[in-house]
Amino acid sequence: MTVKQKVLLLGATGETGSSILNGLQESGNFDVEILVRPASAKKPSVQKLQEQGIRIWSIDLDNFNELVSAFTGVDILISAIGPNDLLQQKKLLQAAKLADIKRIVPCAFITVAPPKGAMLLRDEKEEIYNTIKFLGIPYTVIDVGYWYQISFPTLPSGRVNYAQIFPLNTIHGEGTARNILTDLRDVGRFVARIILDDRTLNRYVYTIGEALSEKEIYHIAEETSGEKLEPTCLSNQDIEASVEQTKAALTQDPRNPIKRTALYIAQYQHSKYVRQDNSPSYADYLGYINTRELYPDFQPTTFRDFFEELLAGKGRKVYS
Amino acid sequence: MTVKQKVLLLGATGETGSSILNGLQESGNFDVEILVRPASAKKPSVQKLQEQGIRIWSIDLDNFNELVSAFTGVDILISAIGPNDLLQQKKLLQAAKLADIKRIVPCAFITVAPPKGAMLLRDEKEEIYNTIKFLGIPYTVIDVGYWYQISFPTLPSGRVNYAQIFPLNTIHGEGTARNILTDLRDVGRFVARIILDDRTLNRYVYTIGEALSEKEIYHIAEETSGEKLEPTCLSNQDIEASVEQTKAALTQDPRNPIKRTALYIAQYQHSKYVRQDNSPSYADYLGYINTRELYPDFQPTTFRDFFEELLAGKGRKVYS
Repeated sequence: MTVKQKVLLLGATGETGSSILNGLQESGNFDVEILVRPASAKKPSVQKLQEQGIRIWSIDLDNFNELVSAFTGVDILISAIGPNDLLQQKKLLQAAKLADIKRIVPCAFITVAPPKGAMLLRDEKEEIYNTIKFLGIPYTVIDVGYWYQISFPTLPSGRVNYAQIFPLNTIHGEGTARNILTDLRDVGRFVARIILDDRTLNRYVYTIGEALSEKEIYHIAEETSGEKLEPTCLSNQDIEASVEQTKAALTQDPRNPIKRTALYIAQYQHSKYVRQDNSPSYADYLGYINTRELYPDFQPTTFRDFFEELLAGKGRKVYS
Repeated sequence: MTVKQKVLLLGATGETGSSILNGLQESGNFDVEILVRPASAKKPSVQKLQEQGIRIWSIDLDNFNELVSAFTGVDILISAIGPNDLLQQKKLLQAAKLADIKRIVPCAFITVAPPKGAMLLRDEKEEIYNTIKFLGIPYTVIDVGYWYQISFPTLPSGRVNYAQIFPLNTIHGEGTARNILTDLRDVGRFVARIILDDRTLNRYVYTIGEALSEKEIYHIAEETSGEKLEPTCLSNQDIEASVEQTKAALTQDPRNPIKRTALYIAQYQHSKYVRQDNSPSYADYLGYINTRELYPDFQPTTFRDFFEELLAGKGRKVYS
């Protein structure tokens, strides 16, 4: 009998965290426990996990001793904390070191981008990675590109609106920048493989379903739906202006999470389409290894299959 | 006939730069040119290089167009700029990008340490590495550990004083922390190999003569000299206090290069002996590859051979 690895997961009820929880449970290789902050303990989503028999640790992140208790005996700590709370992870790291956790997976799970200067969201993650390295805790950074679930166009018929958080009928720049994309549901399946793999220790890894340009995505949408799309074009200059505007707005009101999110979105566009960071070649340059090389037997969901599911009414709106 | 790689070297008259220049010339694989700032062009050390027939580019680092001219056709740009001028390298990077340089070797050439928070000297280098990654310029970071030339103890007889920039008869902490050490003269020989090697592209590499603890170093010194050493001990607390003191002094007078150097030295001690960063295992954790694995045929100078040379009066005082 193999001993199951004990995983403690923070952020289990978010989009990424849910996918990870599912992936870990599906794999059968893990004993998963959940870490929540006291303010979240009574949330229906947390209660539901508790009813499934998952052990819930409700701990204030400032409570160092309780964190050490929760971390003792944990093999792998995974953080899928929300984007506005990234720096809160610092509170976990000393305790993870003291408890001798064998691997920490800090909250990455975004597109491939350089360490500093391209995206505020990435910059804050870098602070955490640097603290991990300072402490010498074994780690794996896992990025996932952009989700299929927020990369598909609106159809004239409105057939896929039910699964969209906002309408999308834009081509950025030339529409030819190929982006690393992963089906959100595959994220957790990839994570379940990556965290048991010695080759990924102290490395950066990206998951990938497909690398597709917007033109390719729109083509697949047209082919599978039979509808004709007429996207609007957004120039690189427009994208740059949008970064400047959202940056200025946040500077005036630095603690406003909505303004922060607006900047994140503008910088995602800039990084994906103008800088073209979120590509296999730049990931390779930055030293990432990819799941396609690591797990050639893993068949990720294709974008076409994903979109056909949407057309069949089997999609789900994220963040809802 | 193989075409020689064209190398442009900044900092060629410094200790590291001189070793690199020698190593590149010795290998015979390079056409080396030198970049100096106008203020340095008349220095005897620069004049001497010019007399050897080396092409000298005397360019103000703010002169973007001239930098682009100098960089055009250069395969490899190596910077061995002084520790107080690290951030000046930013002025080179846009030009290097525009001139499509195939590899940049930014000024690293120090001990292994984490990206942020352990050593101010390392933190400034990280700013440069991040800018390189932001621009997507192919690079190699080369660290060398600490030099033999500043790691050997003073002997009671005074026989090796002639080659010492300051007396050394201290054991830090337990004296058992093993540090990556390289003979300064081997640095350039290693660089000549590393920069022609595809395996080191976009990677961090460390050179290594030996990894030795202070106790091992003192033992070799006693064996080869026949003298008895009686080192003083400096506790971890003393080292920490020295970091705090030098940091406070620099805060009061932030542009004082002497106070900056004092902090560098204190942080080197802290990083090497208290944190024990400059070790093969931590380098491995940080993702470095090492020259021992890359070049098993390369026979670096051993510390014993180096010290026997010193005893034979064949040493040289660095920074003199």
